[in-house]
Amino acid sequence: MRVLALIVLSSFCLQAHGQSEDEKMIKTIFDEALLNGQAYENLDYLTGQIGHRLSGSPQAAAAVEWSYQLMGSYGFDTVYLQEVMVPHWVRGAREQANIVNSKKFGTKSLNIRALGNSVGTGSAGVLGNIIEVQGLKELEKIGKKGIEGKILFFNRPMDQTKVSTFSAYGGAVDQRVFGPSEAAKYGAIGVVVRSVGTVMDDFPHTGTLRYADDQPKIPAVAISTNDAEVLSKALKDDNNIKFYFETHCQMLPDVLSYNVIGEIKGTEIPEEYVVVGGHLDSWDLGQGAHDDGSGCVQSIEVLRLFKQIGYKPKRTIRAVMFMNEENGLRGGRKYAEKAKENGEKHIAALESDSGGFSPRGFGMTGDQSEIDKLVSWRPLFEPYGIYDIGKPGGGADIGPLRDQGTLVIGMEPDSQRYFAYHHTDNDTFDKVNKRELELGAAGMASLIYMIDKYGVK
Amino acid sequence: MRVLALIVLSSFCLQAHGQSEDEKMIKTIFDEALLNGQAYENLDYLTGQIGHRLSGSPQAAAAVEWSYQLMGSYGFDTVYLQEVMVPHWVRGAREQANIVNSKKFGTKSLNIRALGNSVGTGSAGVLGNIIEVQGLKELEKIGKKGIEGKILFFNRPMDQTKVSTFSAYGGAVDQRVFGPSEAAKYGAIGVVVRSVGTVMDDFPHTGTLRYADDQPKIPAVAISTNDAEVLSKALKDDNNIKFYFETHCQMLPDVLSYNVIGEIKGTEIPEEYVVVGGHLDSWDLGQGAHDDGSGCVQSIEVLRLFKQIGYKPKRTIRAVMFMNEENGLRGGRKYAEKAKENGEKHIAALESDSGGFSPRGFGMTGDQSEIDKLVSWRPLFEPYGIYDIGKPGGGADIGPLRDQGTLVIGMEPDSQRYFAYHHTDNDTFDKVNKRELELGAAGMASLIYMIDKYGVK
Repeated sequence: MRVLALIVLSSFCLQAHGQSEDEKMIKTIFDEALLNGQAYENLDYLTGQIGHRLSGSPQAAAAVEWSYQLMGSYGFDTVYLQEVMVPHWVRGAREQANIVNSKKFGTKSLNIRALGNSVGTGSAGVLGNIIEVQGLKELEKIGKKGIEGKILFFNRPMDQTKVSTFSAYGGAVDQRVFGPSEAAKYGAIGVVVRSVGTVMDDFPHTGTLRYADDQPKIPAVAISTNDAEVLSKALKDDNNIKFYFETHCQMLPDVLSYNVIGEIKGTEIPEEYVVVGGHLDSWDLGQGAHDDGSGCVQSIEVLRLFKQIGYKPKRTIRAVMFMNEENGLRGGRKYAEKAKENGEKHIAALESDSGGFSPRGFGMTGDQSEIDKLVSWRPLFEPYGIYDIGKPGGGADIGPLRDQGTLVIGMEPDSQRYFAYHHTDNDTFDKVNKRELELGAAGMASLIYMIDKYGVK
Repeated sequence: MRVLALIVLSSFCLQAHGQSEDEKMIKTIFDEALLNGQAYENLDYLTGQIGHRLSGSPQAAAAVEWSYQLMGSYGFDTVYLQEVMVPHWVRGAREQANIVNSKKFGTKSLNIRALGNSVGTGSAGVLGNIIEVQGLKELEKIGKKGIEGKILFFNRPMDQTKVSTFSAYGGAVDQRVFGPSEAAKYGAIGVVVRSVGTVMDDFPHTGTLRYADDQPKIPAVAISTNDAEVLSKALKDDNNIKFYFETHCQMLPDVLSYNVIGEIKGTEIPEEYVVVGGHLDSWDLGQGAHDDGSGCVQSIEVLRLFKQIGYKPKRTIRAVMFMNEENGLRGGRKYAEKAKENGEKHIAALESDSGGFSPRGFGMTGDQSEIDKLVSWRPLFEPYGIYDIGKPGGGADIGPLRDQGTLVIGMEPDSQRYFAYHHTDNDTFDKVNKRELELGAAGMASLIYMIDKYGVK
């Protein structure tokens, strides 16, 4: 790319036309975020100095303390901790898996990671014949006779033709979430799930499973996409091969943890609340950079930007670092419960939990009149590449607020790279681009500004 | 990010509504690109097996042969080479630079790279006092007295508040392109330019300079953004410090090279041509992955997709790998010259030279009626995240065709990451996401399909 084209391209140059006060304010917000933003260095600290932070872990406690101190240092009106008991799942020692005596590969070790909340196999491991299926529906066809005593291998990949990778994820993740208990129903002794990711590589994607109360809990692991192909080939070659895996994960007693809340009190309607948040916990792999360190530092940045540019909100604005989104949602539920208890009227909540990529839009769930109102603001956001406003959306942690009539909104960045890193050792700080993270934070601050100023009704 | 949100988000799921034939065809194009695309593995070969490929280099010759064979292997109707003489600039041996005897840093070595087309200093190097300026305009104020015998340091950064980084690039790159001859006009002995990039790091960004015919040619180098800050601090501390740099680059005699052209002959109006292209040459740093290996493999993919899905274009469609975009534009000029000579009516040309990132839009230059026609197709592209159609744009290589009345169009992906890698050792294959590259290729193929089917008038 070279000079000539730029004479033409420079007409892209974005400037505040100075037409409306809102255009000016939004331009001020973006300029501050892009010139003096602190989200990126905050994420560097969270990911580099604290690292991954699964609920109940020492790192989760460190992240609570860090975000509490950080918001305090920014001089928000109130910063406090909200107690919540969280599950404490630990991965434990070594995880290993082998194909045993395959004609094609002999005995070959494969890349696996226990699924979150799974029981472990213990040192004995699980050894058995393994059968490949493409989804939950096949189990009934195969029946107890075909499944009992075997390991089930769910191998349906994400649909790469979906432009939204979240849609593709939604179409494949049922195997990971419900697969283990569905398999147990037919007498399976273990479950292997193809990693729910968009890339062919050697990184298993962990993630939560849900055990049904009425079924035995059998151990379950994710296998890397490359090794899912290896295993599938081995099975085509010889469907009597055995599969062995060993995990030492276990669920310990619940632990006291916290949602971390920073607040700027409203000047005119303090009894109305607007929440912006992300989740502080992450899986115990990588650094939880995109999931969801990005959403946390962006949410804190929203309030910091308001203070920095001297915007005093009419309503009370809260940045909430939710705890335990990944394997329990206890923080999100606790926050909604307390909001109800305290009679706090939450008019809107915005969550960023789709990665720190270039912002594209806002999805939402609420009354049609509220949605129409936000959609009417689209011209203010389009100059910043945020054009897709009003499709259905929300966020896991703010979902429980919806029952109180709160308009729930999800920040929607470009989704192409998210599931290359999601829930893996690869979700690290170096995968985050500074400008993309800052544009997201500024887009969120601009929406919160509009909601605060005009309300949602 | 977790399951709950996805029940909501899955409404994002994109499907061909089967309403119109064009919607169906575009869905077919995207599905084929995302499921069986070959752009990514082709880029892997070009960047990994051939590497960077400056005009006149052995690697440029290898890239010509590779793209010629590749398009032949896809069975395009015609594949041929178009001769073009190109400049042959070589970087030569070691490049080094030091601050000499600074109070703050003592003698400290800095990261520099010669600017493309620059003369070298030879082993003697250039040693002198150095003065910092923020742009070309300052030179007149300082005047010959202040500049003569000194080294000029152009240190104006890119404007990070521009949302389009191409716009920010356009606002800073004049220092690199015109700085050396402007400085020579006032008797400067050398030029150091702050790297034109968006990231603070240690990678100098090379790029072309233009020597004025009426000025002595003085050597010029780019300095990394981090070291630009170091040098600036050293100067604030002591404006009498000396700066030393040494380069061994030189311009050799022109070399015979080629544009590489693959063609599918039109079934109804073969005498009308539609071009899709990128440039095959790159700078001699990194691998030229985003600049512009991506545009080359995407352009080849457009024709491959047409053959794969069995679309037989009405008009003659050409994929053109232009040679020498970076430091001469000889290929682009030669192609237009030959098109005129042969009386080939080019109705439209699309260039991809802004990186292999998620596609966002198409910029264009042409008659208003043509632009209006393409803008009216926006609803077909929005489901794929391509929403920004009709702003001014184009491409360096296809620019010369504009004089023949051709509608020139630039592929415009998300721009946030491009100038983190542009013209550096960092422009490597691992910075390219497979789905982003494929979505770009499919978007280009879809636009070429519409232009072929309906024309532009």
